[in-house]
Amino acid sequence: MNRIIFALDVYDYNEALSLSRELSNDVFAIKVNWPLVMNNGISIVKEISRYSNVICDFKIADIDNTNRLITEKARENNAWGIITHSFTGRRSLKAVVSAAGDMKVFSLVSMSQESFIDNYTDDLVKMSMEENVYGLVAPGNRIDILRHIRSMSGDLKIIAPGIGAQGGGITDAIMAGADYVIIGRSIYSDPEPLKKVKSLNEILGDD
Amino acid sequence: MNRIIFALDVYDYNEALSLSRELSNDVFAIKVNWPLVMNNGISIVKEISRYSNVICDFKIADIDNTNRLITEKARENNAWGIITHSFTGRRSLKAVVSAAGDMKVFSLVSMSQESFIDNYTDDLVKMSMEENVYGLVAPGNRIDILRHIRSMSGDLKIIAPGIGAQGGGITDAIMAGADYVIIGRSIYSDPEPLKKVKSLNEILGDD
Repeated sequence: MNRIIFALDVYDYNEALSLSRELSNDVFAIKVNWPLVMNNGISIVKEISRYSNVICDFKIADIDNTNRLITEKARENNAWGIITHSFTGRRSLKAVVSAAGDMKVFSLVSMSQESFIDNYTDDLVKMSMEENVYGLVAPGNRIDILRHIRSMSGDLKIIAPGIGAQGGGITDAIMAGADYVIIGRSIYSDPEPLKKVKSLNEILGDD
Repeated sequence: MNRIIFALDVYDYNEALSLSRELSNDVFAIKVNWPLVMNNGISIVKEISRYSNVICDFKIADIDNTNRLITEKARENNAWGIITHSFTGRRSLKAVVSAAGDMKVFSLVSMSQESFIDNYTDDLVKMSMEENVYGLVAPGNRIDILRHIRSMSGDLKIIAPGIGAQGGGITDAIMAGADYVIIGRSIYSDPEPLKKVKSLNEILGDD
């Protein structure tokens, strides 16, 4: 099982496509964020989806109607998954889940930096489970919080950012309960990104 | 003084530009949201900025580095203002303010729907003031909350969504302390949008 989600935090069209092609066989999914979509439009998600599962890391945080529109456009462009905030409440989360269809919804329940939702993590996990999300986003650099979230989230898939540049350790995060670790900079900044991914996969025991 | 911010919640390029041209002289600013940018790329902000102040309603809700990148791209495309969440904490908010330069930062301190930040409104207002934002986003359909936010936010500009389709009254919001009201559907769904804007301006006492 491949446990790496590659955070494609580059903004140039050609570089994005080229990295996606190169790494697609050795990562579980490719995560894209707003800056890439700002530069290239949402259609770039469809293009990357020819090579890999694409997770749209849009950290959706609006009212229900806008959440629905954002989610629909990601789905229409063949995104495999989408990341939404959950602090916005049940009504907003429901809108994302409902519009997602077969697309996987990952609900963010704790950030990789301190924030004002830190006291609500338990409530957000419970609500997210009740609303049948596919997975959760939990911080790979705040291991105690990640472990706690794992303990209460059944068989939901957990994806963990905060690895590498933000200080989290890749094996620590997996041992604390992450199913997938999100890694960007340490891959795309490497002179040989594919070699880097393969070495990380070895650390994770992936063949 | 014109008090209407037009929420340009349409997604077609030509319709968006045509509405912007038509209404620009009679609204204070035009607010764009993610779905329009998903369809057309961020360059559409630059195009609309030829007609009007543009506020990017991106409800930014990520870690500092990503917040910075999103803000920079909005600024590079001549946005006049940008809306960011503040629950993400001081570090994330600082990143937006710092990257914004002359662009106005509006910090969202309470949503137009119930959410898990409702207990933190006071903290978010205080932090936003300390971080020198230009204005706040406060709910025009939750009048008591809006009034409370007005009472503690000095001379910060308050912009209020939730008017019309979400139940808020336009004059109620102004009387409760909003400097500008955000109105979308009831304008662009009207068969004569310009006439509608002019009639709303009359209600608001604008010449």
